[in-house]
Amino acid sequence: MLLIPKILLLLAIVLFPWAGAPQNAPAQSSAPVYTTDGQLRLPEDYRNWIYLTSGFDMSYSANERTGEHHQFDNVFVNPESYKAFLATGTWPDKTMLVLEVREGQSKGSINQKGNFQTGVAGVEVHVKDARFPGNWAFFGFDGAVKASKMIPTSASCYSCHEAHAAVDTTFVQFYPTLLPIAKSKGTFSAAYQKEIAADAAK
Amino acid sequence: MLLIPKILLLLAIVLFPWAGAPQNAPAQSSAPVYTTDGQLRLPEDYRNWIYLTSGFDMSYSANERTGEHHQFDNVFVNPESYKAFLATGTWPDKTMLVLEVREGQSKGSINQKGNFQTGVAGVEVHVKDARFPGNWAFFGFDGAVKASKMIPTSASCYSCHEAHAAVDTTFVQFYPTLLPIAKSKGTFSAAYQKEIAADAAK
Repeated sequence: MLLIPKILLLLAIVLFPWAGAPQNAPAQSSAPVYTTDGQLRLPEDYRNWIYLTSGFDMSYSANERTGEHHQFDNVFVNPESYKAFLATGTWPDKTMLVLEVREGQSKGSINQKGNFQTGVAGVEVHVKDARFPGNWAFFGFDGAVKASKMIPTSASCYSCHEAHAAVDTTFVQFYPTLLPIAKSKGTFSAAYQKEIAADAAK
Repeated sequence: MLLIPKILLLLAIVLFPWAGAPQNAPAQSSAPVYTTDGQLRLPEDYRNWIYLTSGFDMSYSANERTGEHHQFDNVFVNPESYKAFLATGTWPDKTMLVLEVREGQSKGSINQKGNFQTGVAGVEVHVKDARFPGNWAFFGFDGAVKASKMIPTSASCYSCHEAHAAVDTTFVQFYPTLLPIAKSKGTFSAAYQKEIAADAAK
């Protein structure tokens, strides 16, 4: 039973209207937002989220030719889910992983070799939400699109993430700050444990 | 004069110990911290800051050979200074830009081509602080070093940033989210304006 007179609580709330909010609350909640017809709204502030990693011209096929065209993939996750991952080694409901694809450019200003990032070529969002069968869904945002329908579960992204991703259908094996946490928490998927065992046996 | 009885204020503070902190305060202040002998302490939570960009094997020399060894540069800035840049197109005092160098790896898990990021090869910090002549100073952190002496101003990083960087000795021309802001605020350095003009004349 609470021993605090209600009037004091009310007064405290009037005096300190932010009381009750978590101390380090982000500027805004990062839970997924859907349109009435079930499309995901692009979380436009994702660049203020936690950065996980960048890949350069990554490909699952050794024969893919990129030629002179290069791309970076930057991955961000909403801060609340990142915090949860640090504590548990896996993702809570309402997690959003954003993959931002940016064009690479080699010659520019004083740069002569290698690549730096320029414009956005596309954005993909991987959402964990109990509203989806299998809990996870992918959404693609091209151009100026601000809301997008779920990519059908027949798409290869679902089966590939299911078959190869290290933790809960996400490619934590490529996220250098999260990989040791998943390892220490023992949250690797069965598929990824098999992959590690096979590599170790080589 | 405050009309609130002190006892209520005290009670409110006891009930809501976080009251009084700004609502969206970052987890901790990101101002530079120095040892008594003037070394900069590594800002260990820089991965929770704002991500600016990543480069891949960037080099200012066309002849540099990287062979099979690849590196990523990830750049982060403290959130308060990022906010100030959005508003002004330049950096306030106490800005810290962190350059995290990570090794690239090509074959690993299902990746066959391109590169993903693995371990940290080094960290460099570029600090704006009125305590330094020229306002800016560089610091290098290798291995497990947690505090570092300022790199002497005779080092080439100072002269190169001075001669080529787009905004206030920082390479904003390689930070795709900040470049349009600097352009619209008119904060390009004289050197960078010359470079743009020379490129346009080609």
